[in-house]
Amino acid sequence: MSVSAGASVTVTAFDWVPDFARGQVRDLRVRWALEEAGIDYRERLVSGAQIKQPAYLREQPFGQVPVFADGAATMFESGAIVLHIAQDCDTLLPRDPAARARAISWLFAALNSVEPAVQQLGEIDFFHVGEAWTAERRPQVAATVAQRLDRLAAALGAGPYLDGAFSVGDLMMATVLRILDNTDLVGERPSLRDYLARCTARPAFARALAAQLAAFAPADAARAATV
Amino acid sequence: MSVSAGASVTVTAFDWVPDFARGQVRDLRVRWALEEAGIDYRERLVSGAQIKQPAYLREQPFGQVPVFADGAATMFESGAIVLHIAQDCDTLLPRDPAARARAISWLFAALNSVEPAVQQLGEIDFFHVGEAWTAERRPQVAATVAQRLDRLAAALGAGPYLDGAFSVGDLMMATVLRILDNTDLVGERPSLRDYLARCTARPAFARALAAQLAAFAPADAARAATV
Repeated sequence: MSVSAGASVTVTAFDWVPDFARGQVRDLRVRWALEEAGIDYRERLVSGAQIKQPAYLREQPFGQVPVFADGAATMFESGAIVLHIAQDCDTLLPRDPAARARAISWLFAALNSVEPAVQQLGEIDFFHVGEAWTAERRPQVAATVAQRLDRLAAALGAGPYLDGAFSVGDLMMATVLRILDNTDLVGERPSLRDYLARCTARPAFARALAAQLAAFAPADAARAATV
Repeated sequence: MSVSAGASVTVTAFDWVPDFARGQVRDLRVRWALEEAGIDYRERLVSGAQIKQPAYLREQPFGQVPVFADGAATMFESGAIVLHIAQDCDTLLPRDPAARARAISWLFAALNSVEPAVQQLGEIDFFHVGEAWTAERRPQVAATVAQRLDRLAAALGAGPYLDGAFSVGDLMMATVLRILDNTDLVGERPSLRDYLARCTARPAFARALAAQLAAFAPADAARAATV
């Protein structure tokens, strides 16, 4: 377990989220990268109300988690933080400059070429259920996601990972693909399904996920006690 | 002018796009970063048909521009490429590690916290005009964009740029804000309007934009000749 009260690295995370968001909040990406890098970290838990306060907005302009601090740098945006952690971690970024550049390309592809469409589908399925417009729009968005996944599957080919060995690109892509867990879009594509399973079978992922979920336990218990 | 036939750096760009996309294609970001860094580059113009061919998809898995090559690395994704160019350019990334980390946070914020909502609005306004679902959905998306812009304006405060001097974060944020040029969303916020004007008043931006537009001229002339 790499969550340690005395660690100098801190990561903000929510103290509670609804069921549908559990395992999906973006501190998971940072926890996973830290676990791959073998870096202990301390959680700084924040509430949904707290992230809208001026004090937190000075750290995270959009009122999101995570915020990361390691003494040398304070950063926001999961992509930026994961890349920062990866710089000194051979598991996450190969030393060879050409391979390193490709891994970073995949990191950005996950965030800017795949996630926007995936996120649109998630918004429809979790935040706009039953709204009239979704009947016409959802199939369009699903088709866009399907096209991106087909391209991704073609790029993956028969390989275990997107570019040789596991890298920060795979870490980020896996967290994006998991947003589709409520759909069949990944499952319908066996190579992507297996790829996602391969990424999330990593012990570092399991530890990161367990840590995110464990953070909700005190608030769950408090809510149960007041019912 | 930094477009040079003999340059060793190459960037792919479209040989033609419709009017609404002119000045918005993502090679602009890379051209701008190269101009700021004083690096000559050679265009490799591709057609809309070509980017769907297997040969191009091997370079760019999602069939997009730009692809960048500089001898040391071949990269895709405008964010990854711009960050790569910025690494050795003091104008784009400060040397101080803490400031550098914040600039990179802003780069990712532009791509992953602002652009997805902005892009959704652009999709509605340019690709789904008149579709019934947009009547209900557009106000929701516009409200999300407005909320992000309000947060961005708050972070900007009275400063000229997002974090002190101009950086790669401002470069990327400006290209995202420009996607809203068909709306009043930026114009309604004077500090953001002035910020965007300040960024795009840079000579490097003007050269980058002119170069993207100039690339369409031969195809325009050929089309005109066949009418």
